[in-house]
Amino acid sequence: MRQQDKNELRPWQQKLHEVIYEADTPAGKLFDIILLIAIIVSVLCVMLESVPEYNKLFKDGFIYVEWGFTILFTIEYVARIVSIKKPVNYIFSFYGIVDLLSIIPTYLGIFITGTSSLMVIRSLRLLRVFRILKLGVYIKEARVLTNALAASRKKIFVFLFAVVMMVIILGTIMYLVETPEDGFTSIPRSIYWAIVTLTTVGYGDIVPKTELGQFIAAIVMILGYAIIAVPTGIVSREIYLADQDEKVTNIACTNCASEGHDEDAEYCKYCGEKLG
Amino acid sequence: MRQQDKNELRPWQQKLHEVIYEADTPAGKLFDIILLIAIIVSVLCVMLESVPEYNKLFKDGFIYVEWGFTILFTIEYVARIVSIKKPVNYIFSFYGIVDLLSIIPTYLGIFITGTSSLMVIRSLRLLRVFRILKLGVYIKEARVLTNALAASRKKIFVFLFAVVMMVIILGTIMYLVETPEDGFTSIPRSIYWAIVTLTTVGYGDIVPKTELGQFIAAIVMILGYAIIAVPTGIVSREIYLADQDEKVTNIACTNCASEGHDEDAEYCKYCGEKLG
Amino acid sequence: MRQQDKNELRPWQQKLHEVIYEADTPAGKLFDIILLIAIIVSVLCVMLESVPEYNKLFKDGFIYVEWGFTILFTIEYVARIVSIKKPVNYIFSFYGIVDLLSIIPTYLGIFITGTSSLMVIRSLRLLRVFRILKLGVYIKEARVLTNALAASRKKIFVFLFAVVMMVIILGTIMYLVETPEDGFTSIPRSIYWAIVTLTTVGYGDIVPKTELGQFIAAIVMILGYAIIAVPTGIVSREIYLADQDEKVTNIACTNCASEGHDEDAEYCKYCGEKLG
Amino acid sequence: MRQQDKNELRPWQQKLHEVIYEADTPAGKLFDIILLIAIIVSVLCVMLESVPEYNKLFKDGFIYVEWGFTILFTIEYVARIVSIKKPVNYIFSFYGIVDLLSIIPTYLGIFITGTSSLMVIRSLRLLRVFRILKLGVYIKEARVLTNALAASRKKIFVFLFAVVMMVIILGTIMYLVETPEDGFTSIPRSIYWAIVTLTTVGYGDIVPKTELGQFIAAIVMILGYAIIAVPTGIVSREIYLADQDEKVTNIACTNCASEGHDEDAEYCKYCGEKLG
Repeated sequence: MRQQDKNELRPWQQKLHEVIYEADTPAGKLFDIILLIAIIVSVLCVMLESVPEYNKLFKDGFIYVEWGFTILFTIEYVARIVSIKKPVNYIFSFYGIVDLLSIIPTYLGIFITGTSSLMVIRSLRLLRVFRILKLGVYIKEARVLTNALAASRKKIFVFLFAVVMMVIILGTIMYLVETPEDGFTSIPRSIYWAIVTLTTVGYGDIVPKTELGQFIAAIVMILGYAIIAVPTGIVSREIYLADQDEKVTNIACTNCASEGHDEDAEYCKYCGEKLG
Repeated sequence: MRQQDKNELRPWQQKLHEVIYEADTPAGKLFDIILLIAIIVSVLCVMLESVPEYNKLFKDGFIYVEWGFTILFTIEYVARIVSIKKPVNYIFSFYGIVDLLSIIPTYLGIFITGTSSLMVIRSLRLLRVFRILKLGVYIKEARVLTNALAASRKKIFVFLFAVVMMVIILGTIMYLVETPEDGFTSIPRSIYWAIVTLTTVGYGDIVPKTELGQFIAAIVMILGYAIIAVPTGIVSREIYLADQDEKVTNIACTNCASEGHDEDAEYCKYCGEKLG
Repeated sequence: MRQQDKNELRPWQQKLHEVIYEADTPAGKLFDIILLIAIIVSVLCVMLESVPEYNKLFKDGFIYVEWGFTILFTIEYVARIVSIKKPVNYIFSFYGIVDLLSIIPTYLGIFITGTSSLMVIRSLRLLRVFRILKLGVYIKEARVLTNALAASRKKIFVFLFAVVMMVIILGTIMYLVETPEDGFTSIPRSIYWAIVTLTTVGYGDIVPKTELGQFIAAIVMILGYAIIAVPTGIVSREIYLADQDEKVTNIACTNCASEGHDEDAEYCKYCGEKLG
Repeated sequence: MRQQDKNELRPWQQKLHEVIYEADTPAGKLFDIILLIAIIVSVLCVMLESVPEYNKLFKDGFIYVEWGFTILFTIEYVARIVSIKKPVNYIFSFYGIVDLLSIIPTYLGIFITGTSSLMVIRSLRLLRVFRILKLGVYIKEARVLTNALAASRKKIFVFLFAVVMMVIILGTIMYLVETPEDGFTSIPRSIYWAIVTLTTVGYGDIVPKTELGQFIAAIVMILGYAIIAVPTGIVSREIYLADQDEKVTNIACTNCASEGHDEDAEYCKYCGEKLG
């Protein structure tokens, strides 16, 4: 018989846990949908507040709405803490910190006057949306993509390192070729130009004017146009494999319990046992 | 023996049905070609009408041509309704609605004066071209592509969601870093900048001026340059699989039970047995 | 015994044929290299002639050089005709026409004064370079790429058709949303903007100013960023397969002489014969 | 017994060799980390020196720091030469030349006044970072990528050749279509425009103004948007194959002679035989 635990949740805590943490029950689903809407609306308010016209018109409105959401999220934060067995695990988890950061800026605004820099923290609320989506139908897709990106991590790093090298050397060359009057005022700014060009963004705020500069720029462009193939090739392959892994049978060897056998495998590749 | 149906089409309706709905007969083919030309010419007229110079020169001409096409398409619309057993199914189908939208704006123009907003509806006529092409040689290709996109739907959604997250957070950061004088007047506008940069479009209407802003912009660019690999990898894989399905038969050899034989294979490539 | 042909080339014609058409002999190789250099130098001259500074300095020089190359290419053209059995086949072949177009503009320049429009024809000389490269080490690579593009022809066409649809509808919408003052003066120009944006070129000569316009533009950008995956996926697959075909064994069946058997095939897939 | 070699390194040389050339020992690791930091800091100084504001403030500081690093790298260069059996091999190797180029510009600066052009050589120091990373965990990833690029070398060359052809012909056409007032002043500049457009960079410094010019530009853009698929397809395939080669062993089963077993396989997956 299962022992009575000191940490055992009381009935009302269990009920709360069900609503907040479990998405399968009707109450849990409703809670998730309300939370999703609240997060999106609160982020929209942060955005609209920054538009000068709206800010003039509804200055007080934005303050009231902001406090409304803050109090709502504070209640939710407290509810999450009291309805879990080990609150410390939650508080210091990624989502625990994001949840706290969602409510702190408004409270800090009482004491600090220049709160505009807290705005970016408030927009981090959006990250909370991930938790809710995690429970949805996109869980497998998101896993395949993150697995693919994780698997191509090292290759992407090597590629980005080579790109950084290239833009530094190309930026330095352009700094010498072009005059400061055309925007190439320093090596860092010339490197910025090289990044703008190599990634095919091409703002046009800094452009080469001399023949030699335009010739080098043309080479940078063709280079950028060609090497974009590299990350694509890397990630293509990993997505292919990551999705493949979902195709590997989940038959476990009856002898050594190893998994990950190919679909056409008849014998365990680790111990030679005939597979079921 | 097939029973006489109350809904059975009369001979002239059957003839009309053949011409309009069946592309295999010579009359049907001719009808499709005429319709294709009429659609394209009518859309070209809508476009040219919007060019101020042409509008001044041929103002009346455009009105006559527009009424000509509208009457033509109205006749066709009526013909489609009367030559089908269940007109309701057609009327409320996607193409039925597109067909109706192709003719309504001109009639509405009699009663409403400011008809310029109806122009966009008139350009929807172009969607009708799809119906005709559907009957052509591109049917298999279009199916492979739409299947591939449908299969990658969920992954693309997860990817776009992550992109939206990124541009919101990056846009908010840039709103704080850059001054409103350089175009970063509000968070929504800064998000617009982030989208312009991340997708490597790079208009150059809003560009960072500060060192920190250019540094963040450089990161956004390299990010956008690298993550374009993700949708490419997703779709590459699905096109590969979607096309695969079209090519390899699922005939199993009756002798060795091997599969994966090519469409043109007549004998098993593993044991030489005649394939079914 | 092989019969004496009326069309049989005389010894000097055979010698000439060897030099001009056969790249394997030392004389043929030398001829190809000289021709390659002559083509590239003559195209460079056409380019430099268009630069106002150089044109002022070396006006007469360019005319002499141009006549030099024209006479050289005329001699070559005549030599190609006389050293071949069926000159008509050559004259009306793709390269025959390109060769003729390389020399005609200069002669026409004697009679016609405004020859600037002949310049573009002169730059077509560059196409002649393909003939020489065809004989080089890149022949297999070029074949794989052209095969891949030929195989993806239909899918690319379907994709481009969908893109054209999109830019027409999006351009029309933007024409209604934005004002003519910001560059959206007509539907064709708005479609041009939509192409500039969707392909992520982003000149910045026409940019949306209204909030709604920027919102639609953001959607166009993300769309363009995502759908670039489609042609990439199509071509990726075909290159993979086209290169694969080079891996297919070139064993011919001893019974039915069919080719294109997979590397792991033991029996002919067309007649069931055991493969060598 | 191993013979005493005339070229044998003395004990202090062996110790030095261990520190400089071997990354496995603690001393060697420390040396690599210090060198890595020194290289990056010295390159950062070259960059910051070019910024007018910093240059005014810390003009002398930059000179001292530069000399400090130069002396440090000179000591290292000498140490590398004396601690190796065949110094000539090192001196004329790629890294030997890069190491020498890292220190020469500062010494040359004593004799030559206009040293700004030596700056680009100083930034080549960055290439030295590759040597240190070579010893890290990224060695396999870098090999896969360089193998893939080496394998696709010929195809990429054919592709770039076709791109160069296209931009020359398209640039020439645009030179004739557009007026010099809009930036199309010469054929080389029009080719520069074609490259800017085809690679989807799109600065917007030179843009077509006429209807025909914008129509041709639209074709160039869609062309550039579509053909980017080609290098991506090429490299995708090669990365796939290059990585494949690293994963699958070429051990053949002693029983059924099947191949393609995974690296971690101990038994044949087709017949259950123990693999060698």
